[in-house]
Amino acid sequence: MQQKEWFIEKSTLNPSYGTALTKEEILFKEKSAFQEIEVFRNQFFGKVLLLDGIVMFSERDERSYHEMIVHIPLQVGPAPKRVLVLGGGDGGVVRELLKYPSINEIHLVEIDQKVCEVAEQFFPEVSSGLRDPRVKITFQDGLTFVQKAPSAQFDVILSDSTDPAGVGARLHTESFFEECARILTKEGIMVNQSGAPLLFPEKIRHEQDILSRLFPLVMPYWYLMPTYPSCLWLFTFASKKWHPLNDVRTNTRGEQSVGKTQYYNQNYRRAYFQLPPYLKEQIKPE
Amino acid sequence: MQQKEWFIEKSTLNPSYGTALTKEEILFKEKSAFQEIEVFRNQFFGKVLLLDGIVMFSERDERSYHEMIVHIPLQVGPAPKRVLVLGGGDGGVVRELLKYPSINEIHLVEIDQKVCEVAEQFFPEVSSGLRDPRVKITFQDGLTFVQKAPSAQFDVILSDSTDPAGVGARLHTESFFEECARILTKEGIMVNQSGAPLLFPEKIRHEQDILSRLFPLVMPYWYLMPTYPSCLWLFTFASKKWHPLNDVRTNTRGEQSVGKTQYYNQNYRRAYFQLPPYLKEQIKPE
Repeated sequence: MQQKEWFIEKSTLNPSYGTALTKEEILFKEKSAFQEIEVFRNQFFGKVLLLDGIVMFSERDERSYHEMIVHIPLQVGPAPKRVLVLGGGDGGVVRELLKYPSINEIHLVEIDQKVCEVAEQFFPEVSSGLRDPRVKITFQDGLTFVQKAPSAQFDVILSDSTDPAGVGARLHTESFFEECARILTKEGIMVNQSGAPLLFPEKIRHEQDILSRLFPLVMPYWYLMPTYPSCLWLFTFASKKWHPLNDVRTNTRGEQSVGKTQYYNQNYRRAYFQLPPYLKEQIKPE
Repeated sequence: MQQKEWFIEKSTLNPSYGTALTKEEILFKEKSAFQEIEVFRNQFFGKVLLLDGIVMFSERDERSYHEMIVHIPLQVGPAPKRVLVLGGGDGGVVRELLKYPSINEIHLVEIDQKVCEVAEQFFPEVSSGLRDPRVKITFQDGLTFVQKAPSAQFDVILSDSTDPAGVGARLHTESFFEECARILTKEGIMVNQSGAPLLFPEKIRHEQDILSRLFPLVMPYWYLMPTYPSCLWLFTFASKKWHPLNDVRTNTRGEQSVGKTQYYNQNYRRAYFQLPPYLKEQIKPE
């Protein structure tokens, strides 16, 4: 039997541990102006998207990420109208946002146009919403965009960033979060991709500290991505007013206003905010 | 910089995906009469124990496994006196069991004496209880032991087995579970290492079907092992009478009778039994 080539995703922040995936076939590999983009096929996970050697998602697990970054904040408080997505040129976040009829504008700010093109070519199910008339795409660095945006513009901001290293590093800085708080409406909510509590707890603690100075309510919640090292990763819910468990919108039958989902389940909201104790301990502010 | 050697644990049941760990140093590698035993050092996880190329645990994450297999069942129903452990020659399960003063006999049945020796040499914190006078070790195949044991002998049985392939396969068969049900007391509880719901859901479904025919109450619960592929794995709680959430022993202050733990937390019992929805769906009986 032929020896298969293994791809190992090793976090830049933890180089002795990673997730290993066989590369059955390389479908695309090219350096854009910003990063190396690669798509390969794995027997179990299907097509996998890499940016600078970091897994963004696979066909098999992308819904876990995209549903969890969107449906946790989007069910909270009054029905949102204007949403800002930073990163996320693949379109997965946009696809989930388009399930909300109340939204009339989605601003997608992606630094690298090539990511959108590759997603449209290789991940049509992920990128399906990118050409929806409600979606305005700006190809720009996210930090520059938020610095220039007028105040109190957005009901929700979703930071769909990569690790706090490389291209995505600027979306994890204090000035970035300050600008986000400024351009959110006074009842606004932000969710931020926070990383792996097992692998870089200091980074996460530091970010939670910054967010806690800017938002009265800061609560991390977990999601599972089997293609990411250590699998259990965190998003952080940061809110000016509404609570992610106490202020959920439901209809008269107690149902949430989201359509069919594969991973997100309204009955599990509370469990998503319960971190396993030892991880909770690791990221607790000092 | 020198290229490091990577160890990839690929599940025999899912060969295109695995966990990758750098091997900083190989401390032990030997074929016993039953399997290949290896101990190596990883920068992040510390010493790692492999049996036939499958990770048993690392110094960093072993408490997650050992606390979760023990403290979920041991807190339920009347205080147990006699406990049977199948596999687990490393001593991690025994160490946790010895925290219960009610227990006066722990029968440890390990097929491979070499596992105990290696654990005592390289993992003294894990194997610390193996020479306790309450522990009776039998070096024998677990299935043979349960077949020969008299009925209604044990209050609790913990099956600390490896994957349902290789040496551990016999501890995942119907006749094994039948014998376990027979040698448990009439209020007995069994917990079984069930594997990865993402990677081999059919195996888990099949096992849950068998257990459901033998026990009135069968409830899987999750634990996290970052060194195992897909990280979120299952134990199955199977009980003749007592419920893992409704029949928990507590003192007058509502505290459970377990000492200090690093991973297990009584306030999270309910969350441990809540599987992420898509995994729950995958292992649901048809």
